[in-house]
Amino acid sequence: MVTYQDIEAAHSRIDAYVEWTPVFVSESLNRLVGAELFFKCENLQKTGSFKFRGATNAIRCMDEETLAKGVATHSSGNHAAALARAAREAGTRCFLVMPTNAPKTKLAAAQYYGGEVYHCKPTLEAREKALQEVLAKTGAVFVAPYNNEDVIAGQGTCGLEMMNQNPALDMVLTPIGGGGLTAGVSVAVKELSPETRIIAVEPAGADDAFRSFKAGRIIPSENPTTIADGLLTSLGEKTFPLIQQHVNDIVTVNDDAIVEAMGLIFQRLKLVVEPSAAVPLAAVLADKVDVDQCRVGIVLSGGNTDLDKLPW
Amino acid sequence: MVTYQDIEAAHSRIDAYVEWTPVFVSESLNRLVGAELFFKCENLQKTGSFKFRGATNAIRCMDEETLAKGVATHSSGNHAAALARAAREAGTRCFLVMPTNAPKTKLAAAQYYGGEVYHCKPTLEAREKALQEVLAKTGAVFVAPYNNEDVIAGQGTCGLEMMNQNPALDMVLTPIGGGGLTAGVSVAVKELSPETRIIAVEPAGADDAFRSFKAGRIIPSENPTTIADGLLTSLGEKTFPLIQQHVNDIVTVNDDAIVEAMGLIFQRLKLVVEPSAAVPLAAVLADKVDVDQCRVGIVLSGGNTDLDKLPW
Repeated sequence: MVTYQDIEAAHSRIDAYVEWTPVFVSESLNRLVGAELFFKCENLQKTGSFKFRGATNAIRCMDEETLAKGVATHSSGNHAAALARAAREAGTRCFLVMPTNAPKTKLAAAQYYGGEVYHCKPTLEAREKALQEVLAKTGAVFVAPYNNEDVIAGQGTCGLEMMNQNPALDMVLTPIGGGGLTAGVSVAVKELSPETRIIAVEPAGADDAFRSFKAGRIIPSENPTTIADGLLTSLGEKTFPLIQQHVNDIVTVNDDAIVEAMGLIFQRLKLVVEPSAAVPLAAVLADKVDVDQCRVGIVLSGGNTDLDKLPW
Repeated sequence: MVTYQDIEAAHSRIDAYVEWTPVFVSESLNRLVGAELFFKCENLQKTGSFKFRGATNAIRCMDEETLAKGVATHSSGNHAAALARAAREAGTRCFLVMPTNAPKTKLAAAQYYGGEVYHCKPTLEAREKALQEVLAKTGAVFVAPYNNEDVIAGQGTCGLEMMNQNPALDMVLTPIGGGGLTAGVSVAVKELSPETRIIAVEPAGADDAFRSFKAGRIIPSENPTTIADGLLTSLGEKTFPLIQQHVNDIVTVNDDAIVEAMGLIFQRLKLVVEPSAAVPLAAVLADKVDVDQCRVGIVLSGGNTDLDKLPW
């Protein structure tokens, strides 16, 4: 299981490569919700999402011989671009299996950073089959998007930074898909501030983490649908135990609330975010989390969205 | 004429009220244009534009008796919201004459900050007539959007900050409308770094500053049209002499280039900007300014744009 020491080690290892992203506040949003919101801007991270932390840590943990084989993954987007860039910076190749329905911005980014893309049908089975073929053909090393301890430790550095930037947070809200961000951030936050509550927020149309958390066992999503294209994945066996241990609650929000929150982030914070990043604020706006008078850290997970298809 | 000492004094006066806005860079934009671009994020300034600097300085220069009369202005947007907020923070009223074609985001912002809005037809004559009526009726003090030395000195604090954040700039690019930003910034930059070139950039459809600069006398715009709604105004007699003295050149760009630049700022910097803010980058992309291998400061002047009418 990933520990706080793993996250500290990851932070030292990747500090030269990743951005220490800023935290922004909006007085008008604070007034609107009756709380103090601190937005950790991972949309301003390299490659436009927190995924660059985990990908960089995983690659920088490899010895030379392993690294020389190249890396590979399947991803609908942000992990793909992150791994491609981290691989290029470390001087190795990156093979990517991407579903045909991946947002075109995310596909373009993966290719921009030198990723070698193999397209597959947008099902879990097709992804896994295509990945096995790519691994067999190239000999590359698989770096899972979230079910990988080095990746989880890398994502945790986001939580470590948040607590250094704003120590006295009553609550931290993260979006949750496969759980890599939530797992890593929750380990870091609970070590640095045990009283801080961690709430993960999930789209109602892809609520496997919510159901799994309540049931006490992993219940994968079947045909999830949500505008938050980064949160379609299901929990993994490396993320779920950490989430069970450290997360106080998981709540869900519908797509209408996500779109409303996304619009407010554009309008008030002047930041471009993708729908997944707006999910925690949506929970606040829809009264799914009681933030009254609290100091609340919110991870804006990414900013890669097709700007000619904005949902309003 | 506004001096560097006026700008330093303004900086001390308003420092507690305005944001010291961050400067962002994008490696991919740098690679695209073959230069190092430093974006000064006035879209993240309070009220979403640099106008809050000038409005705050003008109001904080007033004695108590003057301030108690309230303030008034005409503006299609950003100066209106800025003056409204600065007035409210100083405990006085703000009366605003706004044309009926002002972007709805900007009208909403002016009202949000407590501005008392009077609508007028979108012509210079209608604006001035309505303003005179409001001044007569209310007894308020007129704070011009740019043709006012306290306002110019306030805008100049943006240049002072830029040169402190990135001292060795070869060039600074500003959008130009009425010239308040360009005049103030150019005074500050030339004092702190006389070799730094100042280039103002103007939409081709509202090119009065370009024509005035070449002719050596103010030639006002007639029926200007451009997507950059913040730059429709013509130079004033308080801004023009400063621009003649300190600005190295003025260039123009067409609306297509402005839209392209705006899209790149959303996509690569993950920042929401209004069309006017994209005008300097448009000049770089359209090869109107030679930035090859230069360190270039660019003022992103504001971020108030109707998000349901994005121009792509």
